[in-house]
Amino acid sequence: MRADAVATGMLHTLSNGLRVAVAPMPGVETVSVGVWVDVGGRHERPEENGLAHMLEHMAFKGTTRRSALRIAEEIEDVGGYLNAYTSREQTAYYARVMRDDTDLAIELIADILLQSTFPEDELAREREVVRQEIAQVNDTPDDLIFDHLQAAAYPDQAVGRSILGLPERVATFARSDLQGFLGRGYGAQRMVVAAAGAVDPDAFVKAIEKLFADVGAVDTDAPEAAVWRGGSIIDPRSLEQTHLALGFDGIAIHDPDFITAQVVSNLLGGGMSSRLFQEVREKRGLAYSVFSFAGAMADGGMVGVYAASAPESVAELGPVLAEEIRRVARDANEVETARARAQMKAGLVMSLESSSARLEQIARQVLVHGQPLQTSDLLARVDEVDVDATRRVAARLFESGKPLALAAVGDTEQLATPEVFAAHFA
Amino acid sequence: MRADAVATGMLHTLSNGLRVAVAPMPGVETVSVGVWVDVGGRHERPEENGLAHMLEHMAFKGTTRRSALRIAEEIEDVGGYLNAYTSREQTAYYARVMRDDTDLAIELIADILLQSTFPEDELAREREVVRQEIAQVNDTPDDLIFDHLQAAAYPDQAVGRSILGLPERVATFARSDLQGFLGRGYGAQRMVVAAAGAVDPDAFVKAIEKLFADVGAVDTDAPEAAVWRGGSIIDPRSLEQTHLALGFDGIAIHDPDFITAQVVSNLLGGGMSSRLFQEVREKRGLAYSVFSFAGAMADGGMVGVYAASAPESVAELGPVLAEEIRRVARDANEVETARARAQMKAGLVMSLESSSARLEQIARQVLVHGQPLQTSDLLARVDEVDVDATRRVAARLFESGKPLALAAVGDTEQLATPEVFAAHFA
Repeated sequence: MRADAVATGMLHTLSNGLRVAVAPMPGVETVSVGVWVDVGGRHERPEENGLAHMLEHMAFKGTTRRSALRIAEEIEDVGGYLNAYTSREQTAYYARVMRDDTDLAIELIADILLQSTFPEDELAREREVVRQEIAQVNDTPDDLIFDHLQAAAYPDQAVGRSILGLPERVATFARSDLQGFLGRGYGAQRMVVAAAGAVDPDAFVKAIEKLFADVGAVDTDAPEAAVWRGGSIIDPRSLEQTHLALGFDGIAIHDPDFITAQVVSNLLGGGMSSRLFQEVREKRGLAYSVFSFAGAMADGGMVGVYAASAPESVAELGPVLAEEIRRVARDANEVETARARAQMKAGLVMSLESSSARLEQIARQVLVHGQPLQTSDLLARVDEVDVDATRRVAARLFESGKPLALAAVGDTEQLATPEVFAAHFA
Repeated sequence: MRADAVATGMLHTLSNGLRVAVAPMPGVETVSVGVWVDVGGRHERPEENGLAHMLEHMAFKGTTRRSALRIAEEIEDVGGYLNAYTSREQTAYYARVMRDDTDLAIELIADILLQSTFPEDELAREREVVRQEIAQVNDTPDDLIFDHLQAAAYPDQAVGRSILGLPERVATFARSDLQGFLGRGYGAQRMVVAAAGAVDPDAFVKAIEKLFADVGAVDTDAPEAAVWRGGSIIDPRSLEQTHLALGFDGIAIHDPDFITAQVVSNLLGGGMSSRLFQEVREKRGLAYSVFSFAGAMADGGMVGVYAASAPESVAELGPVLAEEIRRVARDANEVETARARAQMKAGLVMSLESSSARLEQIARQVLVHGQPLQTSDLLARVDEVDVDATRRVAARLFESGKPLALAAVGDTEQLATPEVFAAHFA
């Protein structure tokens, strides 16, 4: 353990390979604890699409020693909360409680993760709940468009499918499917148990040792590699706004250029002073929501932009988005690069002041990088991104010659064809 | 100033009546600062609907010394952010920055609040931006339904109108409208300037004194009293889910029963163990989203529930919601009341660990109660709510004999009539 580990987070590995990370925070009264598992939607076989997420839901539906109701009551009796989410590469289960209730929170999370029984009657009802969750996304255009964009970028691949899955498949999931997926993926070496906030590291490691020492190793198949294809999904609907998203083959999380890709995204559409906000909203009044994003996986990523405008403005919006994206490689300047660096650094420091954000950060760092990262190292890496790097990575992203991904939801009559969008980047 | 004021927040009043509140937080590196103004949508005349919100937008569009672009650049150059919101009773402008940039953040907020010029060309574009913001809400059923519910509860009243206004009215707002509304409402005695986080109270008060000493007093007319009417707004649409909300005449913010109303809402639909979550989602699988809420204004409030289900389930959902609401007055028990208390208390402590939440809390406490509240006093007030109080206030809310408010968005063919809903509470 490094001497400055206290400030950054400590890492301890159990004999079964499960890692425990702790980030004590002085001056707080609450603690966030959770388990991050290196398993998500992309680890599903095609016929399993939605299963990782269903498993996450079903973890709350009863264990060998607690009913679903008891799980909810025990955490809420002490004023805490327990939640979970599923992403394409990870599944997380976490809680936040007052300091004195840390042991309860840890024990509850261990119980739902390691002792769930997946009762048939609970599964039958939960399929209906997830059906409603899917319907909610389908009725929310600014959620749905990102599923469309991902599917356009990675057609017929696990990373291109929605996390929630399709209702007709979800309706078929059986208890044995859940148990099979759990047994295949939830091995000790793929789990990080972490805590942030008012937590004593030694006591936490001891508690985790006791609860998780028996978790076995699992030989998990590596997921199918993500292969960027690009393409378009146009979803015409009668809406007041037309939603438009463009995506470009991005940069994988271990690639040295990933932080620079975040700088590119930040200056393109990260804040009020960004190019997109200024051009699309401030100069032209075309949109209320306009932003960019840079996401990364183990073996790929996506950098993209989103905006929603009046249907009659889409003919103007499309070329403006494309040209603003294209220009970055040519004329990104020092001032906006410095501003993007400042925003990323301050954002990092701000997030470290929340125990729930700190928990997620440290757990994901251990899953992705094998150890907690020093905040000072992260800040220094951001500081290294200069205007030359910004332009170079913008060119890598937007002048790659690879097909872009395009998604639209709404009245798309005025929307240019995918070929016209592609021509901006030819 | 009380001896324990440091832990709770300090209050200082300038000679013009403007109040300054500070909540230093040990162990943090960032600071949140902002101005809360005792002016919101309900202070608009009927023809002004949407003007408070437009004024909030236009505060970012240029001052006597800064263009809109400079405002955005100056805060983002140091990695900070600047934002604002408008509610029915209040308007807030706030920023979060690193400790060393506190003076910049304060000066920027003072500038946009006190020296805005509202350029005509900026206003013309911002009308279009707000038109898109309105369109976004109209396309988002689980936002829109709460505007409908408010309008159903308070028809033809300022508190019943949407904050954003109607596009046809927003399109007519002129610079003189903004100046008139600002001059009428933004008086020193209606403003609280506050900071939370890594802030030195004495330096902060001095900085505010310098920047805000010249703000004048304003004789603001009291807004029209809110009069609960009840009624229904049904918005049939072709959607995968039908959204349903019920509202009941609530309890004003200074009423001693308000905290108990929050306990009632919490045990009814606040968490996973709540009655609604258990009955609607866990036992019946009818919904993914189901929750309750308790909101309060100076002279009224609303307690209500929301759920979204498949259209074919609405006939089952409606009576289940109504019966769960009705039952609380009859059979709320000690265990769930204690759990609701624990959730409210832990939620309060958790929120105090975020400088942005702490800022909002202290500023609103001063606007509403005239001073920062002691956390220990707030916790003690929650602890006083016993099962008898819970049942009594549930009866006050749900057996008042007053008409309820009902809103629905989606396929409402299976939805019972408002009269059928009303009959549950007769």
